This record gives sequence, C-alpha cells and structure tokens, in this order.
Amino acid sequence: MEYTKPLAKLIEYFQKLPSIGPKTAQRLALHVVKMSENEVKNFAQALIEAKTTISYCDVCFNMSSTNPCEICSNSSRNKNIICVVAETKDLIAIEKTNEYFGVYHVLQGLISPIDGIGPDDIRIKELLFRVNQNNVSEIILALNPSVEGEATSLYLTKLLKPFNIKISRIAFGLPMGSELEYADEMTLLKALEGRIEL
Amino acid sequence: MEYTKPLAKLIEYFQKLPSIGPKTAQRLALHVVKMSENEVKNFAQALIEAKTTISYCDVCFNMSSTNPCEICSNSSRNKNIICVVAETKDLIAIEKTNEYFGVYHVLQGLISPIDGIGPDDIRIKELLFRVNQNNVSEIILALNPSVEGEATSLYLTKLLKPFNIKISRIAFGLPMGSELEYADEMTLLKALEGRIEL
Repeated sequence: MEYTKPLAKLIEYFQKLPSIGPKTAQRLALHVVKMSENEVKNFAQALIEAKTTISYCDVCFNMSSTNPCEICSNSSRNKNIICVVAETKDLIAIEKTNEYFGVYHVLQGLISPIDGIGPDDIRIKELLFRVNQNNVSEIILALNPSVEGEATSLYLTKLLKPFNIKISRIAFGLPMGSELEYADEMTLLKALEGRIEL
Repeated sequence: MEYTKPLAKLIEYFQKLPSIGPKTAQRLALHVVKMSENEVKNFAQALIEAKTTISYCDVCFNMSSTNPCEICSNSSRNKNIICVVAETKDLIAIEKTNEYFGVYHVLQGLISPIDGIGPDDIRIKELLFRVNQNNVSEIILALNPSVEGEATSLYLTKLLKPFNIKISRIAFGLPMGSELEYADEMTLLKALEGRIEL
C-alpha cells in the first residue's frame, strides 16, 4: 500500500508527535485534507508562531512568549514561595487548581542516572541562585512520585537545608474518588506514612 | 490558569482534530515548542502541502495528488472489478491487505437519513456512470456493518441489479483471533448467516 506522497509525509510528521500511533496519524492527516485551506494555513501558522515566539523564562524556566513569564511578572503572585516542578506541563497542572499563588521553578527534567541526566543537566544551580538572592520563605517540591522524582527531591532537600527555609513536599496518597481496595501497595504505604493528625 | 497566548492558540488547533482531547492537545503543543525550529517548519509545510496538492480522483474519488489517482492510473490493476467503499480510509485499509488488485469507488459517505444524507449526496450516480460506460464484471460492496452501511448496500444492490453483473458484499463474522464466547449476538448471527460450506 502506498499513500499518495504528500499524505505519506504528513502522516509521518503526525506520527513523530508523542502518543500518536500510525492509525491516529492517518486519521489526523485525512482530516487535514478535508479541512478548509484557510483552517490548515492558520494551523500551520499557529505551529510556527508557537515555536518561534515561545522560549523559556530567565527566572523560572517556564515556557512563555514573554520574559520574565506571565507568572514571574505578575505582581500579585507571592515571590517568597517557590514551587519546584519538573516540566511546564506540571506547572500547568498546578495552575489549574487555581489555588496556588506563589511562583515556580521548572527544573526542565529530573535526575536520572539511567538516562545520563545528572544534577548539572537540570536547572538546579539556577534554583539555588534564586534562593540565595531573594527572600524565599518556602520551597514546595512538586515532583512526580517516581524513582527519579524521589531522587531529585532528596538531592534538592540536602542542598536547600543550609538555607534555613521551609522545605515541603506535596502529599502522596490515595487520589480523590479512588477506592482503598484498588490502591496499589506503594500508594497505600505512602498514604499511611503521610497520615495527618485530625 | 492562562496559557501563554501562542500556546493557547496551538492547543486550540490541535483540539479541533478528531480524537484529540484537551490533555493530548496540551501535550502535543508543549512537544511542538520543544521540537527544533526546522522540524516545526517542515511539519507546517507538510500540512499546507497535503491540503493544497491533494484533491479527489475524477474517476474513483479517492484522495490523491495525481488525477486520475495512483490506483486508477496503474495499468496492472484490474479495471473490471470495482470495490465500493465509503471513505478513503476504508480504501487504505483494504490496500494494506496487499491482496486486492481491482480498482475502487469511494462514495464519500453513506446514506444516512438521520444526518440528512440522501443517495444524491454521495457518489452513487458517478458509480452508475462508471458501470454503464466501462466493462465492469464485479462490484464488491465493502461498507461498514452499520445501519448506514447496510442501507447503502441494499440501495446500491437494487440499482446495480439491472446491469447483470456480479455484485458481492464482504463477509461479516468473527474477527480473526477473537473468541466466540465474547462475540456479540449480532456478529454471531451474521457469522451463522454467512456460513460457508466446507
């Protein structure tokens, strides 16, 4: 089976995107051909615009089209509390709670010796610089409950301890709406360890 | 939560594509920002190229960048057998078997009174024209086993009968590798009805 050439090329590009398999790539490409020419041009333009205008905030390394980013330059955000996340997508997830009013620090990765990513490959020294320069009262570690996330949390805790500021970690435990019966052992263990006195 | 503007726009465009929800759209858009500028430009170019160079074959209404399409203009394909499908994606699925050497006719839809699609809204008269003009020996109906597919198959059978050519329909039954125990009643019924003498 041979796709007509421009279609094959477009399918190939769609397939390079994360979580897009060959079947979905084909469906998306066929859909593009059925879209109006104007829509396709706007889509292509949005791709290029996102790529060329978005870069990283010099302060917190969040993706942004302004520098400093919208959050760092927002005067109503509390600059004394820094929430440390691995990626912009984690920052977005926390922003969606609408309940966090501090600022962020995006590490742009996690320590992962298996993948050859050491402490110097992520934005750790920039975090220490911020803590050193500014009046920071609390660091909230919001990293994934994975081996890499735990390792990075431990490492950061050790580095931040000398600054004598409050260091906290988001809670790991049962997700809301879940059932205890179906929780895995590690989650239950973390939930027990993290129990809160009432 | 506010996305930085060019990111919000790109997420919106991704979300308009079929089977892409808000979470996936966000993941794809963040990925685009991390791609190299060259890759993004090529992707955007592929979108525009697919849209502007692909149109429909005047003979079989398959999507193609040539006219007639690659299949209709392939001299090794048997023009006497026409396989009727609803959409280009169905044609692609059959091509992937590598075992069909006839040509196609893409109806570009199915009769569906609920959606206001009647016989005149799809490429039925063009099929009749082909059968009338050319030396066609067999029509294979390969339409989905749905209400719309069955209705369209019935309608086409009635129209094609007077031409005195062989009309067949692909088999409906148990998919390969499936288990009888888990098959739904309609599939089992079709499998029984379509039983083949050994």
